[in-house]
Amino acid sequence: MSSHFVLHDRLANGCADLGTHGICRVLLKNNAHFLWVLLVPEVDAEVTELHHLDEEQYASVCHSMRIFSQCMEQQPGVEKVNVAAIGNQVRQLHIHIVGRHSQDIAWPGVIWSCSEKQPYEESRFQEIQEALKAIWRRDL
Amino acid sequence: MSSHFVLHDRLANGCADLGTHGICRVLLKNNAHFLWVLLVPEVDAEVTELHHLDEEQYASVCHSMRIFSQCMEQQPGVEKVNVAAIGNQVRQLHIHIVGRHSQDIAWPGVIWSCSEKQPYEESRFQEIQEALKAIWRRDL
Repeated sequence: MSSHFVLHDRLANGCADLGTHGICRVLLKNNAHFLWVLLVPEVDAEVTELHHLDEEQYASVCHSMRIFSQCMEQQPGVEKVNVAAIGNQVRQLHIHIVGRHSQDIAWPGVIWSCSEKQPYEESRFQEIQEALKAIWRRDL
Repeated sequence: MSSHFVLHDRLANGCADLGTHGICRVLLKNNAHFLWVLLVPEVDAEVTELHHLDEEQYASVCHSMRIFSQCMEQQPGVEKVNVAAIGNQVRQLHIHIVGRHSQDIAWPGVIWSCSEKQPYEESRFQEIQEALKAIWRRDL
């Protein structure tokens, strides 16, 4: 972890912090409209683009993207995975991994144009966290 | 190249085809609003997600994403690079690499919510193609 890493408030807010996978902090958005994970590489603040990562960091982040995308696709109802590094508003490097389906409220549009939020039922939120945490158990 | 690969019309339309980098067909959108490249892995049609690629293909595509993002960032006026694999409407796997700036018509929103199109002046379109083609020359 970079000694300079401080998670941006706008990324942390409304998310469960699931810990670190490789060099990425893993956040799950508490929004029942979309199954939505953020991967936040724990690197220096000046690294604001995916391609600013050095080769080893880049490979590690790409591996985490792949693993979380695979997990996302296995969740009930997910028909498509959307993966993106945008960061026009919050410059701290973060990658969105989003499970989509043709009945979700933004379909077929992108979620970043959709401001609708709806917290999960607590039991469902815990269930998704457990499904994601199985990734770490498989990696052991 | 996969023997099954046929570039989808909706990806090809309105784009210049710059050839193949690694396993990706490289397309440049003829839209002066955004500096916008599509990388289309030349793989079987059932591969509709980035994480469906096998490990070698995945590494190759991630490398191309990195190289084209670096090139994008070097173009005049580009302040931020947006990288995304979405594919909710066209399932053929494709990755967007987009150079953004704070005066573009969709800023700070995402380009996929913006239907505005404006062809480049032909000389400018050629100039950008030449800048991108320098990637291949550097790789020799």
